[in-house]
Amino acid sequence: MTPIMDKAEAAALVVAARIRKKLRWADIAAELDAPPAWCVAALLGQHPLSAEQAERVCTLLDLDDAVRESLQVQPARGIDPALQSDPTIYRFHEALAVYGPAIKELIHEEFGDGIMSAINFKLDVSRRPDPDGDRVVVTFDGKFLDYRW
Amino acid sequence: MTPIMDKAEAAALVVAARIRKKLRWADIAAELDAPPAWCVAALLGQHPLSAEQAERVCTLLDLDDAVRESLQVQPARGIDPALQSDPTIYRFHEALAVYGPAIKELIHEEFGDGIMSAINFKLDVSRRPDPDGDRVVVTFDGKFLDYRW
Amino acid sequence: MTPIMDKAEAAALVVAARIRKKLRWADIAAELDAPPAWCVAALLGQHPLSAEQAERVCTLLDLDDAVRESLQVQPARGIDPALQSDPTIYRFHEALAVYGPAIKELIHEEFGDGIMSAINFKLDVSRRPDPDGDRVVVTFDGKFLDYRW
Amino acid sequence: MTPIMDKAEAAALVVAARIRKKLRWADIAAELDAPPAWCVAALLGQHPLSAEQAERVCTLLDLDDAVRESLQVQPARGIDPALQSDPTIYRFHEALAVYGPAIKELIHEEFGDGIMSAINFKLDVSRRPDPDGDRVVVTFDGKFLDYRW
Amino acid sequence: MTPIMDKAEAAALVVAARIRKKLRWADIAAELDAPPAWCVAALLGQHPLSAEQAERVCTLLDLDDAVRESLQVQPARGIDPALQSDPTIYRFHEALAVYGPAIKELIHEEFGDGIMSAINFKLDVSRRPDPDGDRVVVTFDGKFLDYRW
Amino acid sequence: MTPIMDKAEAAALVVAARIRKKLRWADIAAELDAPPAWCVAALLGQHPLSAEQAERVCTLLDLDDAVRESLQVQPARGIDPALQSDPTIYRFHEALAVYGPAIKELIHEEFGDGIMSAINFKLDVSRRPDPDGDRVVVTFDGKFLDYRW
Amino acid sequence: MTPIMDKAEAAALVVAARIRKKLRWADIAAELDAPPAWCVAALLGQHPLSAEQAERVCTLLDLDDAVRESLQVQPARGIDPALQSDPTIYRFHEALAVYGPAIKELIHEEFGDGIMSAINFKLDVSRRPDPDGDRVVVTFDGKFLDYRW
Amino acid sequence: MTPIMDKAEAAALVVAARIRKKLRWADIAAELDAPPAWCVAALLGQHPLSAEQAERVCTLLDLDDAVRESLQVQPARGIDPALQSDPTIYRFHEALAVYGPAIKELIHEEFGDGIMSAINFKLDVSRRPDPDGDRVVVTFDGKFLDYRW
Amino acid sequence: MTPIMDKAEAAALVVAARIRKKLRWADIAAELDAPPAWCVAALLGQHPLSAEQAERVCTLLDLDDAVRESLQVQPARGIDPALQSDPTIYRFHEALAVYGPAIKELIHEEFGDGIMSAINFKLDVSRRPDPDGDRVVVTFDGKFLDYRW
Amino acid sequence: MTPIMDKAEAAALVVAARIRKKLRWADIAAELDAPPAWCVAALLGQHPLSAEQAERVCTLLDLDDAVRESLQVQPARGIDPALQSDPTIYRFHEALAVYGPAIKELIHEEFGDGIMSAINFKLDVSRRPDPDGDRVVVTFDGKFLDYRW
Repeated sequence: MTPIMDKAEAAALVVAARIRKKLRWADIAAELDAPPAWCVAALLGQHPLSAEQAERVCTLLDLDDAVRESLQVQPARGIDPALQSDPTIYRFHEALAVYGPAIKELIHEEFGDGIMSAINFKLDVSRRPDPDGDRVVVTFDGKFLDYRW
Repeated sequence: MTPIMDKAEAAALVVAARIRKKLRWADIAAELDAPPAWCVAALLGQHPLSAEQAERVCTLLDLDDAVRESLQVQPARGIDPALQSDPTIYRFHEALAVYGPAIKELIHEEFGDGIMSAINFKLDVSRRPDPDGDRVVVTFDGKFLDYRW
Repeated sequence: MTPIMDKAEAAALVVAARIRKKLRWADIAAELDAPPAWCVAALLGQHPLSAEQAERVCTLLDLDDAVRESLQVQPARGIDPALQSDPTIYRFHEALAVYGPAIKELIHEEFGDGIMSAINFKLDVSRRPDPDGDRVVVTFDGKFLDYRW
Repeated sequence: MTPIMDKAEAAALVVAARIRKKLRWADIAAELDAPPAWCVAALLGQHPLSAEQAERVCTLLDLDDAVRESLQVQPARGIDPALQSDPTIYRFHEALAVYGPAIKELIHEEFGDGIMSAINFKLDVSRRPDPDGDRVVVTFDGKFLDYRW
Repeated sequence: MTPIMDKAEAAALVVAARIRKKLRWADIAAELDAPPAWCVAALLGQHPLSAEQAERVCTLLDLDDAVRESLQVQPARGIDPALQSDPTIYRFHEALAVYGPAIKELIHEEFGDGIMSAINFKLDVSRRPDPDGDRVVVTFDGKFLDYRW
Repeated sequence: MTPIMDKAEAAALVVAARIRKKLRWADIAAELDAPPAWCVAALLGQHPLSAEQAERVCTLLDLDDAVRESLQVQPARGIDPALQSDPTIYRFHEALAVYGPAIKELIHEEFGDGIMSAINFKLDVSRRPDPDGDRVVVTFDGKFLDYRW
Repeated sequence: MTPIMDKAEAAALVVAARIRKKLRWADIAAELDAPPAWCVAALLGQHPLSAEQAERVCTLLDLDDAVRESLQVQPARGIDPALQSDPTIYRFHEALAVYGPAIKELIHEEFGDGIMSAINFKLDVSRRPDPDGDRVVVTFDGKFLDYRW
Repeated sequence: MTPIMDKAEAAALVVAARIRKKLRWADIAAELDAPPAWCVAALLGQHPLSAEQAERVCTLLDLDDAVRESLQVQPARGIDPALQSDPTIYRFHEALAVYGPAIKELIHEEFGDGIMSAINFKLDVSRRPDPDGDRVVVTFDGKFLDYRW
Repeated sequence: MTPIMDKAEAAALVVAARIRKKLRWADIAAELDAPPAWCVAALLGQHPLSAEQAERVCTLLDLDDAVRESLQVQPARGIDPALQSDPTIYRFHEALAVYGPAIKELIHEEFGDGIMSAINFKLDVSRRPDPDGDRVVVTFDGKFLDYRW
Repeated sequence: MTPIMDKAEAAALVVAARIRKKLRWADIAAELDAPPAWCVAALLGQHPLSAEQAERVCTLLDLDDAVRESLQVQPARGIDPALQSDPTIYRFHEALAVYGPAIKELIHEEFGDGIMSAINFKLDVSRRPDPDGDRVVVTFDGKFLDYRW
């Protein structure tokens, strides 16, 4: 009996295969017929894949059964703290430090006492062309949940 | 000589006046003719107002000169750490813990090595009707900046 | 213009009045016709009261308008970190350290990939008589939310 | 002489075997004739098993003597801090941040000065059907201990 | 309505009165007919006093009703983190760093899987004469609680 | 040249041998003719053993020369932070949080300005029978050191 | 006897006076005939002013003797941790996270084993015009100190 | 499939080869025809190299394909926290603690509300001869970005 | 009844009086006929003064009875964490980071297993003239205490 | 190509060889003809050795070329945080907590605004015989550096 391959190790192998095969994340998302942000997050270890999804990815990337098994198991979700200060990720934390309380005010004004779900949730990363320099547009889209006893 | 009123104290007075006068943030934004998220953030102390903006807000809310002066000064930006675990704000941090590395992968794939600016940046909070329960949609929209020596 | 009374200050006045009037939390819950755990949490500053609820509580406890106003505003939720190590509260954290991963396994086995909502949620504290010493029984009861894109 | 297998390593092998043999935690609990939450916690390393229990589990899961030995030793209890922010576990911490002081008030009102034991303690995770979506119900049940000199 | 005096403030007044009246803690313990360590801890804010105890202490020390009320309320227990590194207190933490795991081994060997209660617990500080320099002897004495489901 | 075996690794081998040979710590203490708490702490890596003590322990437990050498070297003392929240060890920290300032007051009242030494120090763990449940009694016994310039 | 005004309080009064009198830091530096970065740092509380410098600043800004006294006393140097995440300051920390080890390599290659002094040190902030957008140029200039026994 | 070599491991091999071949960082920068600070940072893992740059470096230093591949991948940027207190690096943090708020004031006075970019950014380390001891001069040079909605 | 003046407040008054009366610490030490380092530490709140010492200091500095009382009470020892990064104090921490393990090796080699007492301890700060720049010489002098059971 | 041996690994081999060859640090210092504290610190990884010094040490201790190479490379200086609470090292931190602000006052009184260098610095550990128990005397001796723009 061997332990199931750690999802971080599986993710490192997915990333290595993607780069060596010169595939884009978009290619993998197309193969899985699923939204790119979901696919990347799942392959980095944040969501379980179905058996069929794991099969398809591993076939596309020539990865073995240990990876295939690892991709299907239930994750413990979270991020390596060292990554939080990577500049590309940090800017989102900075935006939340600056705008978080304003977001809270506007959610409560519009919806009442409650939250945006991070579970019934989807996220999109896109490019918006702009003559002054193209824009990164990231949309957080979650169901409103009101405090309800 | 007295020190300039702390922006947190000014924000508390803005909030109190808004509630007692039964005004919505949208009403204040309309008075300032500026985007709601910017207005709320600015009034909570994250952006300086112009003299004219400060004048208008204080007239609308019956706030005195000390508030008016405070709203115009350059802020030190940031958030009270205690607020980071308020559930309405925390869900955004959780989403970044789950999706942050995926956002980073997708930005690099689409744009190359760089970041979404949090300075040349705007943010929007809106409601999207949905039969399964309306959605909170928060859009982060910042200029792409590539690492450039 | 004065700022709205801090919810912690309002809570301290509620607690003082409750003790000096020799009322039990149960008496206040009865007056509000609401579940005790909800009432205590709300009066300690974790939920907004309706205008009518705030009116009733302040009448019962002889508290003034500043408290009544404070009780109705939207809270920023959270706990004073110093309280986390109070032994009565700490035991729940210890139980989560010991049983948290087991709870996670059992939720996923029974419900699939998702969480117990802490928003669509209720909680109950009760006594269960036992010949070996009565038991404190605390029930966490939240809607299951599945990860859904 | 080799060191005793770390309980985390043993737990990883138990989890791998359970998944590969397509067994549910409930099946293992049935084999051990013990409550599911206790069994899962114990197999994840939080309680020592008796020799007979360890024997039964290892036979059921085809695990070797090193695992059997590890499962019986006295644990150092606690949780990997990284797991505390897994969303499924975090919601319980959030509920304690919101309701912890209320729980403390209600325990003291009902029982006097003391705590719910986390040692003479049991915990149950169950599903309660609900037309608005089934509920996760987690019950903390511990003996009341009064401060007694 | 005024809030109940903070227990730290009450403790500071007790300490000031004790010093100015040139009383020893032992004198106060005698007046309360209770163990010294319990008395000092209670007066520093870690245990509630009965109405009669609070009355006696305040009479002895000429303290007013606000102190008397404060001493009776249920405490939130804990220590100012700054005090943890006071050398007199720190030595106990150092002893636990050096001997904690040994204490754990010896408790489990002698009693089985469980803990020393810190609730059904008493503590004593005494002097033991010794020709090489007198000894501080501090005894922790708590009921053994076995892990029991 | 190989590095000296880490004391934590040596401790793990001592623990494994003790369990497999079905010896009690008391048996090892008897072999070393030394106090049990000292022995356990030393074998867990907190004190150096003399060459003769190391020889005796390794003979008793069938441990090799690398362990024998490791047990004799000067330790860097301290505890794995993860162990501090093990419930059996944590209760002592909780007792210090509740009673630490009282201990400090009583030491100063009895001895003057100074500390209990944690170096010229001994500790004992024992059982005291009690009809309401036996007691864990842990005695900290250290020389008083007065602040002396 | 009153305590000396805290340097942070003096700094807040300097800042308020500077803004209300519509003076630039450059105006104050000119009055002191000293480098701007040194002046701003000193007035914010990081360097002591001479009696003459304090006199000049307080005359220019109409500040009273309590400020004048405070500006002359020896500071305890450091920064409010909350300011470290202000975006304007944070970018320098980010640059050090990205380039710190490279700076260290280049200092050692050019100078040998040692450091740039932060005491025998000066700093300059300037604008460099650039057709793609003007540049902020901040120069750290400190004496090299070699490790010398 | 093997994972891509970690950039820290690649950096350690670059450093080892540089030392054993008695090359200076300046020699490597000359080979890459790129600024020294950029080169060192990139080779330590903070910037991706182009395929051609990676080829040249690995040829110069006799490093194999695994290093060459690793040097080209997109980094997660940041610093080992242990390095932050290395004295050569720490002095820059100390300078920021002393001068950070002054830098912020001067940037806002000269440029308005905004920041120095750490992305559109370059850095230079040089020696300035000085009769009192040569100076380390480190220049931070980044594009000014104004807060712009 | 008023609380005893906080020792930090008393220290601030001592410091203010010393500066305004243009006295040196050496003058105060002479008045107390005690070592300068002990005097400064005591007056900053780290040691209790005798009644006579407190009387002398307060007479010399024209300080009132509240200060005199405060200086005599038993302190809780420790330092404001913000002061630890003041450059003048930080260099000692840096020296301990660089030389701490070497100090430990040399103490154990010379004295055996034990420590330098920080209680039976004295400290001296002096100037040693040197043609290359005078030296700050700080001597830590404490009794050796061997680990003794 | 292999990476250069980590300085911590080299230090562990130096320590092992020193013990097994029954050499004292003083013997090694004599071989290097250098001050003991410098030698121990350097061999533990805090200073680079010259090629000749590394050669001598490795010959004396029978250590191989990998150690010899490692001892010569430029270190990143600092201490394992776990070591900071080792009692032998901790007492120095405690002394700095108690006397640090007094040291700062005395340096500023004697020398003016500046610091003791930790770079142009030497340290000595010695024994001073004393009838009441010998003393550990540790001298910090660094050049005074005044704040100089």
